[in-house]
Amino acid sequence: MEQSSKKSDATAPQAIHHELRTAENSAAYLLRKLETAKQSNPKLALLDVGAGSGTISVTLAKAIPEGRVVASDVKQDILVRAQAIAESEGIKNIEFQQADVYKLPFADGSFDVTHCHQVLCHLKAPSDALREMIRVTKPGGLVAVREGDLETECIWPEAPGLLKFHNMAANFMQLSGGSPKAGRQLLSWVLNAGVRRDQITMTFGTWYYNSEDEKRTWAQAMSELVRGGRMRGVALDAKLATEDELEEMARDWDEWWAKEDASLAMMQGEVVIQL
Amino acid sequence: MEQSSKKSDATAPQAIHHELRTAENSAAYLLRKLETAKQSNPKLALLDVGAGSGTISVTLAKAIPEGRVVASDVKQDILVRAQAIAESEGIKNIEFQQADVYKLPFADGSFDVTHCHQVLCHLKAPSDALREMIRVTKPGGLVAVREGDLETECIWPEAPGLLKFHNMAANFMQLSGGSPKAGRQLLSWVLNAGVRRDQITMTFGTWYYNSEDEKRTWAQAMSELVRGGRMRGVALDAKLATEDELEEMARDWDEWWAKEDASLAMMQGEVVIQL
Repeated sequence: MEQSSKKSDATAPQAIHHELRTAENSAAYLLRKLETAKQSNPKLALLDVGAGSGTISVTLAKAIPEGRVVASDVKQDILVRAQAIAESEGIKNIEFQQADVYKLPFADGSFDVTHCHQVLCHLKAPSDALREMIRVTKPGGLVAVREGDLETECIWPEAPGLLKFHNMAANFMQLSGGSPKAGRQLLSWVLNAGVRRDQITMTFGTWYYNSEDEKRTWAQAMSELVRGGRMRGVALDAKLATEDELEEMARDWDEWWAKEDASLAMMQGEVVIQL
Repeated sequence: MEQSSKKSDATAPQAIHHELRTAENSAAYLLRKLETAKQSNPKLALLDVGAGSGTISVTLAKAIPEGRVVASDVKQDILVRAQAIAESEGIKNIEFQQADVYKLPFADGSFDVTHCHQVLCHLKAPSDALREMIRVTKPGGLVAVREGDLETECIWPEAPGLLKFHNMAANFMQLSGGSPKAGRQLLSWVLNAGVRRDQITMTFGTWYYNSEDEKRTWAQAMSELVRGGRMRGVALDAKLATEDELEEMARDWDEWWAKEDASLAMMQGEVVIQL
């Protein structure tokens, strides 16, 4: 257990799950806009904020082959992983830069498009981050954000440990300053950042698992998180769960994924701001 | 109030809301499959079960101009409305037939495609209805179903009356034999109907309102439902809410829709069965 809690972010089970993300399955709402934007300017400059292991950034780079992508994250070590992924895919029009979303190291109007995925939901001041993303984007450019709404997560078949896990994850997110209702709140965060309503296109998308591979990958990651991952320590310290409850959660995840009718889905709020 | 509770289904506020539904916004997962199916057989015969006022049926008929659609519903009066909509749109390849989903008046294998939208969520025996839909579909044909998951509904900004409304609506649905978790349960219902997992494609979609027109239409419908519609009588009789609580719900709906950051979204389970 100690061993897995010492894993770097890049090889932790959650990171493996994050690497299932692509522009196609996580930023389709933006890809449609990029197709139009490319018509007038094929050399788009795109900033991906909080890029993590960069699988979305890399597929965005593929979508604008004549443009260029800067993938940034607050954690330098995860960008090393992102760079390795870009290299293994042979993607040349991408670079990596450590950056704090509240204080992006770029001049005003540096990018045509600024994007983030599941970043604001973890922040104490999401509208401040949005203001900063808007600052580095050109007038006439786009800011695109997609944030999950953890409260809409539905897991079937139900089990007591899975419900406890869901509640603990929502509490965990709030404890660390984030919001488990980010999807539905996103529009209010954007308006609070000073954007006019008529500049905003709001849609809702979904993320889901129902293939056996996806379900097993996710369930094993969650089981590992509560048996030995960083969530275990925080949960016990903050009394979000007892050791017995954590074991019940892990056992229910272990049993869930192989069920033929098992599925897991969550709704996502999506916003494109036309500057 | 009495007056509005006597309105026919066809002109009730919920029916007006239902008429916002089209194949594009409510059956996109099926339209993709129809495009492929049309290649080998342009003359597809499609049954739409529980078609209501038929706006999805009519747009499905447009999608298969050389095929034909039979739109059925258990209520004859709503089909009169559906027929009027089809005529006003100039759609010729559609007919209407009253039918009970548990006992469809069609021979085995009568249709290439059988579809329903938000029907099983209201039924006590959804797998029986699915078996019947499968029976009337040809070997090699498709059965397509989309069911909302009311528990995933998210309304922002929050208000006590809106939360009470949500809980009452979920209880109301269960009291009448339906399921407020239909979206996540859909896969299990299909498997229980005797379908193999490898015949099933499962996806999740969304339904949402965020334009001012959509929000006002929906909020006014909900407000009217609790002030004078059929939900009021059932809610009071079953002690799901007091008169004061119903008034609080109506007032919160009245105030909600005009807020700039207001949005409402819900996740939908979607299944295509390849027979």
